[in-house]
Amino acid sequence: MRRLSLFLLSFLSFSILYAQSDDSLMIRKIADEVLVNGKAYDNLRQLTKQIGQRLSGSQGMVKAEKWGIEKMKEAGADKSWLQQCMVPHWVRGAAEELKITSGADKNKKLAVAALGNSTGTGPKGINAPVIEIKSFADLETKKDDVKGKIVFYNYKFNSKLIRTFESYGDAVMYRFMGPPAAAKYGAVAVLVRSMSHSTDNYPHTGSTASGDTIPKIPSMALGLKDADWLDQQLQKGTVNVFYKSNAHFLPDTIGHSVIGELIGTESPNEIITVGGHLDSWDLAEGAHDDGAGVVQTIEILRALKAIGYKPKHTIRFVLFANEENGLRGGTKYAEEAKAKNEKHIFALESDAGGFTPRGFSFGGSPEQLKKAQGWIPLLQPYGVYEIEKGGGGADVGPIAETMGIPAAELIPDSQRYFDYHHAKSDVFENVNKRELELGALNMAAFIYLVDKYGL
Amino acid sequence: MRRLSLFLLSFLSFSILYAQSDDSLMIRKIADEVLVNGKAYDNLRQLTKQIGQRLSGSQGMVKAEKWGIEKMKEAGADKSWLQQCMVPHWVRGAAEELKITSGADKNKKLAVAALGNSTGTGPKGINAPVIEIKSFADLETKKDDVKGKIVFYNYKFNSKLIRTFESYGDAVMYRFMGPPAAAKYGAVAVLVRSMSHSTDNYPHTGSTASGDTIPKIPSMALGLKDADWLDQQLQKGTVNVFYKSNAHFLPDTIGHSVIGELIGTESPNEIITVGGHLDSWDLAEGAHDDGAGVVQTIEILRALKAIGYKPKHTIRFVLFANEENGLRGGTKYAEEAKAKNEKHIFALESDAGGFTPRGFSFGGSPEQLKKAQGWIPLLQPYGVYEIEKGGGGADVGPIAETMGIPAAELIPDSQRYFDYHHAKSDVFENVNKRELELGALNMAAFIYLVDKYGL
Repeated sequence: MRRLSLFLLSFLSFSILYAQSDDSLMIRKIADEVLVNGKAYDNLRQLTKQIGQRLSGSQGMVKAEKWGIEKMKEAGADKSWLQQCMVPHWVRGAAEELKITSGADKNKKLAVAALGNSTGTGPKGINAPVIEIKSFADLETKKDDVKGKIVFYNYKFNSKLIRTFESYGDAVMYRFMGPPAAAKYGAVAVLVRSMSHSTDNYPHTGSTASGDTIPKIPSMALGLKDADWLDQQLQKGTVNVFYKSNAHFLPDTIGHSVIGELIGTESPNEIITVGGHLDSWDLAEGAHDDGAGVVQTIEILRALKAIGYKPKHTIRFVLFANEENGLRGGTKYAEEAKAKNEKHIFALESDAGGFTPRGFSFGGSPEQLKKAQGWIPLLQPYGVYEIEKGGGGADVGPIAETMGIPAAELIPDSQRYFDYHHAKSDVFENVNKRELELGALNMAAFIYLVDKYGL
Repeated sequence: MRRLSLFLLSFLSFSILYAQSDDSLMIRKIADEVLVNGKAYDNLRQLTKQIGQRLSGSQGMVKAEKWGIEKMKEAGADKSWLQQCMVPHWVRGAAEELKITSGADKNKKLAVAALGNSTGTGPKGINAPVIEIKSFADLETKKDDVKGKIVFYNYKFNSKLIRTFESYGDAVMYRFMGPPAAAKYGAVAVLVRSMSHSTDNYPHTGSTASGDTIPKIPSMALGLKDADWLDQQLQKGTVNVFYKSNAHFLPDTIGHSVIGELIGTESPNEIITVGGHLDSWDLAEGAHDDGAGVVQTIEILRALKAIGYKPKHTIRFVLFANEENGLRGGTKYAEEAKAKNEKHIFALESDAGGFTPRGFSFGGSPEQLKKAQGWIPLLQPYGVYEIEKGGGGADVGPIAETMGIPAAELIPDSQRYFDYHHAKSDVFENVNKRELELGALNMAAFIYLVDKYGL
């Protein structure tokens, strides 16, 4: 038996080595296709420069849906369609304003942007003093001083954390829960320090909590330089401001996720999903967030088709609607999959920017994680060094949860992401062609491995 | 014995763990200092915006030397001085020009820049037809057609290679050896396709071979879009051009490397060197090449001093003169060290851009490499995933070779480097504060580990 075992073992080892070599060659083929003939960068130029901002409910989103379905066909989808969902229709309205009305700097304007889903002051605005709050604990201490004032949350993005998404996770609660928390104590409006390490002064928007039971007061983000300036003024004494936001909701409207499909040759009823979100905030072109994920998704389809790859399973390429202020596209995708009794096996997302890839975050069982980590040597030549316990992104969350399947997300280098995130600077010019392509090719390789070996 | 061994083993493991934990804390301290109080970015702004280009022999280099010595003092050097060396003094002269003189595009101008160390045509220029050469093998095939013509080397930067420095290594011989090779067959001038993946049209300069025995003809780099355009025209027929370059050498002049020192507390006569090069090409501000290495070097000094670190060995912080077109600073540094019978133990360089760090390249014995690789777990939280066999950069080459010591170089992510390298786009705005700082702190951590454990 021992000799036989050894024989079997060496045979197996040989098979594994052989398969790995086959896989290396296939991944090299995918990589060459993306790096030499890639269309992701040109597609991103179209999406950002010809369409631009595409917040749910906007004309930009409607144009982007039409563009997306054309791109799916052009890239070689066997099938493509729009999946309808109702989306919130929040609008910024006429220009916001924050103007100093007291002291030596009277009439100085600060850089502000209404938070997504926030309510406005109306065109007449508000005149009130500002009170600075450093943390929720600080709010509790000062709760009796808040009434009638504008609460300025000045919680800093933590520069000691190496991964900027951790700094974001740490700070974002002030944007999301800060407004209702301040409203509870009678504040009339909120300013939130932008969540960023950027060295410019652009305000960074993003969703704030909304819903029937949540108290609403006008809420705006403040640029970092102006946040520091305001902090200094408040240390000297009272600061009165004129605060105006015209943000408001219109009735929900119709939106669509764009879906393309490569039909599986062996198990066409077993579905792998890969996607990014088509909507963006309204302040810029949404180049990194999430134009990158959109064009990477289309590029994976294009490249797999171009090299003649025939997937065993059906691969769905999804440009999700309404990630930014509602997640209705991702939610609807899961609901419809459940209603149709679809079988899903894996979902992958790109929504952390078109930067140079470093790894994947993976949500699944320890055994599945270990299996995926076994593929690292195949991805390492392309810059992926780790597959770490985590999860997929927001859009693939509902399908992963509904189906009880593993999900993953591309983890690019995060240092520049929050410089641009939800701000005017999130434009095409801040995306590098090669970094974008490396993300796409590593995702395509990951999809190929899941399609071949399962999880 | 077995029990004793086990006991010893567990004791040793404990000691190692304890030391690692100490090291983790120290590296965390260095990281916090750089990320919270870092001056690298502000210093880079000064160097690039207040001084700008600083090619050897230029006024910019003289200003940069003065700035550098002030910065060494400000950062807390125990000693600082200028190390003199003679440097080549090449100048671009009045604006270069390449103008089409035949066909439908007569008078169209293409984006060109004289190669460093090249000779010029003088103000009268040259009128000649262009011949396209795809490789040195192609040159041999066409050698009888070259006489009296302008050779256009159109060798593409290989996009299949993941690490762009490999693409550069592959292509750079056409810039360096292309001009004398063309001159040998009677060419009157040379155009070289810029070595870059960039999507703009800036020409990228860089050294070409020079010396008494090397045949000299005027040589310029051509922007990528114009290189593609010229290639298309040449496929249709003859292209005649007016070619003018005013590049020339002036007599060698005096330059200086800037040196700061932290004096060792245990072995002050054993020296660790860390540095980057102070000179830059003349087309831009040299922000990545090598402003980044310069300010990281100063930042390592500043941070170690700020946290009160007392090195065992003497640490030398060197801003080398003349890396770009002569390497006279690095050469002089090694010569003087030898003449003074100094003892050096290690040298580290940053000259691959201020991008997010991925690893170190290391030149030393297999045992030394293994020892350094043992430190990876300490650096991994800060983005360094590999220490690979390689070597230090150009500037620490002479000291490493002269002393027979190990040398290393920071390896940042390379995707964007050649977009800017030696071109007008190598400006401060293309450097990210956090990426620059992460490079500095990983270098500081590496220096700390070498100082503590040796190699």
